[in-house]
Amino acid sequence: MTEAAPVADAALPLEHLIASLLVVRGSGHLLDSQRRYPQWELANAELQSLLKLGVGGVILLGGSAAELSLRCRQLQDWAGGPLLLCADVEEGVGQRFEGATWLPPPLSLGQLHGHDPAQAIELAHRYGRCTGREARALGLNWVLGPVCDVNNNPANPVINVRAWGETPDVVAALTRAFCQGLQAEGVLGCAKHFPGHGDTSVDSHLELPVLPHDRQRLATVELPPFAACIAAGIDAVMTAHLVLPALDRQRPATLSKAVLTDLLRGELGFDGLVVTDALVMEAISRHYGAGEAAVLALEAGADLVLMPADARAALAAISDAVASGRLSRAQLEASAVRRQRALTRVRSGARAALHEPDQQLVRTLLQLSLQRQGGTVGSPGTAGGINLIRLETCLQAPQAVPQLPALDLPAACGYRPVLLEPRSPRPWSDAPEAPLNLDTLGAGPVLLQLFVRGNPFRGSSAANEPWAQAIAQLQQLGRLAGVVVYGSPYLWQSLQRVLDPGIPAAYSPGQMPQAQAQALHSLGIGHTDAGMEADNGFTD
Amino acid sequence: MTEAAPVADAALPLEHLIASLLVVRGSGHLLDSQRRYPQWELANAELQSLLKLGVGGVILLGGSAAELSLRCRQLQDWAGGPLLLCADVEEGVGQRFEGATWLPPPLSLGQLHGHDPAQAIELAHRYGRCTGREARALGLNWVLGPVCDVNNNPANPVINVRAWGETPDVVAALTRAFCQGLQAEGVLGCAKHFPGHGDTSVDSHLELPVLPHDRQRLATVELPPFAACIAAGIDAVMTAHLVLPALDRQRPATLSKAVLTDLLRGELGFDGLVVTDALVMEAISRHYGAGEAAVLALEAGADLVLMPADARAALAAISDAVASGRLSRAQLEASAVRRQRALTRVRSGARAALHEPDQQLVRTLLQLSLQRQGGTVGSPGTAGGINLIRLETCLQAPQAVPQLPALDLPAACGYRPVLLEPRSPRPWSDAPEAPLNLDTLGAGPVLLQLFVRGNPFRGSSAANEPWAQAIAQLQQLGRLAGVVVYGSPYLWQSLQRVLDPGIPAAYSPGQMPQAQAQALHSLGIGHTDAGMEADNGFTD
Repeated sequence: MTEAAPVADAALPLEHLIASLLVVRGSGHLLDSQRRYPQWELANAELQSLLKLGVGGVILLGGSAAELSLRCRQLQDWAGGPLLLCADVEEGVGQRFEGATWLPPPLSLGQLHGHDPAQAIELAHRYGRCTGREARALGLNWVLGPVCDVNNNPANPVINVRAWGETPDVVAALTRAFCQGLQAEGVLGCAKHFPGHGDTSVDSHLELPVLPHDRQRLATVELPPFAACIAAGIDAVMTAHLVLPALDRQRPATLSKAVLTDLLRGELGFDGLVVTDALVMEAISRHYGAGEAAVLALEAGADLVLMPADARAALAAISDAVASGRLSRAQLEASAVRRQRALTRVRSGARAALHEPDQQLVRTLLQLSLQRQGGTVGSPGTAGGINLIRLETCLQAPQAVPQLPALDLPAACGYRPVLLEPRSPRPWSDAPEAPLNLDTLGAGPVLLQLFVRGNPFRGSSAANEPWAQAIAQLQQLGRLAGVVVYGSPYLWQSLQRVLDPGIPAAYSPGQMPQAQAQALHSLGIGHTDAGMEADNGFTD
Repeated sequence: MTEAAPVADAALPLEHLIASLLVVRGSGHLLDSQRRYPQWELANAELQSLLKLGVGGVILLGGSAAELSLRCRQLQDWAGGPLLLCADVEEGVGQRFEGATWLPPPLSLGQLHGHDPAQAIELAHRYGRCTGREARALGLNWVLGPVCDVNNNPANPVINVRAWGETPDVVAALTRAFCQGLQAEGVLGCAKHFPGHGDTSVDSHLELPVLPHDRQRLATVELPPFAACIAAGIDAVMTAHLVLPALDRQRPATLSKAVLTDLLRGELGFDGLVVTDALVMEAISRHYGAGEAAVLALEAGADLVLMPADARAALAAISDAVASGRLSRAQLEASAVRRQRALTRVRSGARAALHEPDQQLVRTLLQLSLQRQGGTVGSPGTAGGINLIRLETCLQAPQAVPQLPALDLPAACGYRPVLLEPRSPRPWSDAPEAPLNLDTLGAGPVLLQLFVRGNPFRGSSAANEPWAQAIAQLQQLGRLAGVVVYGSPYLWQSLQRVLDPGIPAAYSPGQMPQAQAQALHSLGIGHTDAGMEADNGFTD
């Protein structure tokens, strides 16, 4: 890493200077027709045109690891100069780009920290290295993580298992280690969502949450992880779309000078890149126009504007604000210098080839976070049993790529699958004490597998379904063969209260195929069948 | 195209000569961990080792168009020499490799031929050009099509809409045009499945079908399309795994000298490449060992052995057969010469960049094949309606990439989705006259959308469900808002018999997102909402 000290280019046209402070959204796919979210992902002609204007960064989603590598090269070519290429790869690059390593969520390390802090910290560092190494190999230079929010609200619909822990100390220790892992790979990181999004029960993708805490509480709970990452030299901090009346009664943190300038720059002494969360999110876009939101964010002290609802409108509004004196060119130049300085910290070098994912790290994290009760799942008998799988979505389910051991392994033992997702025919009756309509499932013992975690935009419909009562119903009928929960530790804890101690059950924080295979193996499903194991490609 | 006349390389080691006659299966994905079918798709180390031995071709499945382009380059590099790279892209390259053009199935053109032969033939030519152009741009040099089977058995579980028609003349005319389209793009084709797989009701992926016809009938019905393609200069013919007692009481066509040598080479005068269908298919692998099947195929007159159940065993068995005199080196050299001659017909040139799919051709094919009855679908009222969608599989459904207009467009009109697939909770009651258990669906008018076509391996579970009775049930209750069938014209015809003429209903042979948008627009769903159209990215 070189530590040059860039200075502002006074000759840079204002239009180009402004453009360099925008980060726009693109698809990780190469073709316009492949875009999954065309309402948010710019078409290639527009992307190319904006990059020519000097737009400073692109946030990518969608596509496989191989496609991402081609895409990053294409975008760098279009830009002509150094470009920030970022993605929300909080749980490994494979969380978003199939083929790379998809790691179990950070909260699993927060739980491990409770009984083995040293190992948790070492694994958080490996977590950062794995993410940074693969990001760089594929062409990303900026990982939008770690999440520094303290998840002290189990009902949080948007942070939840994305957090590194439930207490400030744990989150601080693990996010610092993660940052150091990224740095060791020469990739930029981003602490988010400042000043803390862990104690909300509202999804800021849909509404604007309010955090009622006073400054003393913020200093005790929300801020320490950010302070730890800043002390560790984090490159960027991302703002939260929530209102903190104790700091600013009027504006959400993203648009608040009190939060970004007074608190983050002043009190916390952060001099790196301040980037907004996506301005296109409803919490902002419902209340402010696309141009005005961008101007307010810069006025508040942000350096970079992420995903403005309308990039052209943002460029024009910022330009007008400079003309009218609302914003100074000097301020924008200072932001551009911070951007350039960050880019000098990116380790360049030959693009690596695609590599197999780090299965060893996935396996270690899964082994250390697996929870179990009861014995092993019995044979369903000759008439067969039911493998009731609740997915948050069936269509394009990442849990089913490349295969779905949660379906395949029980099938090989005589449990036929019943797949449930929010749009399935209703398996529910109107009886609160016996909520499952067993006619829709068929006869035989039931193995129940729930894939449940908080999800931005979608919340968790499954968490609102009467699974505790369904478990009680099946237990009473003597038809509960076993239970596996993938994802939410809170759901697992709540179900454990009703589960008979003798019922075989397991919890894994991960939802990926390896997590399925491992949890089912721990219940005696598929473990002894070497053929099945060879087939599903996992060796644990 | 150059028409050099390769001669056998007498100095080629026998091992290399034999290897050049094998076509093995690889994944279109780059990493071993991404393989969808690891039991069939060789791992990279084994692929690389076999290519070093001189294996002559790879058949690819899986991965996106972008991944395929990287994969083809990688395999060519590993091979060192010219390599056959093929795929079952019968319905456009996008049928298998997302991002390229996915065309409606060939049978749609067979139906168009009934009232506009000239247009059908012109479109079959464009179909071939589109497929050939994209195959070559991505690195494939051999398209495993056209299907020359005459689909005169609507219950055919494996050919069905893959056929170009239901009569020999139509199939001959359209497959010839398709071949000429491929040739114009400098890509090899393959007429299949010789001597005709259209009149079977058994899936040869699972069992060995028997075709009881005499030679006269074969000459009248099954053979003319193959003869037409041979006359048009088709490069290769693929064998069928079925028994024709009139020609060979003992061996399936793939392994029959009477079929491959006497009929195909002799009577039909074909001197191009004869390639087996995949030897790993149950119809062969259940009856013959991996090595013996390969030897028998070559003995019968095949040049290339596709997907032997065990490539190493096939190499060893062929080598032993030469040593023992069962096979002659001269015969293998003649096959190698045919392979080299085919490769000289491949147009080489700079690899093109990825291009947007040919939406215009898709749109034209869909417009010409759409069928309609009744008026437009009404509003469901303020309480909303149900959009009951039957998919053949929810997991990794290609119909849902990049979006699922069948779900999104009705949702915008107040029809909430209920997704049904073979593993969903049962929506059925035990009453034959009222088979739908309406409690599992909820209240309101029902829009019914059925995605049904024959699928190798899976058949069509949906075709066995009581949809005609369900339609009668909903009509009687006054709850049937509309019906759309995507895929099988046979299901559509059978449902039309029970549909009240006033019920809005549509049939599209395609299942891709454009087919969904177009059929629904024709029923007045989503057509007037410009926002929806912009969102789904289709402009028809």
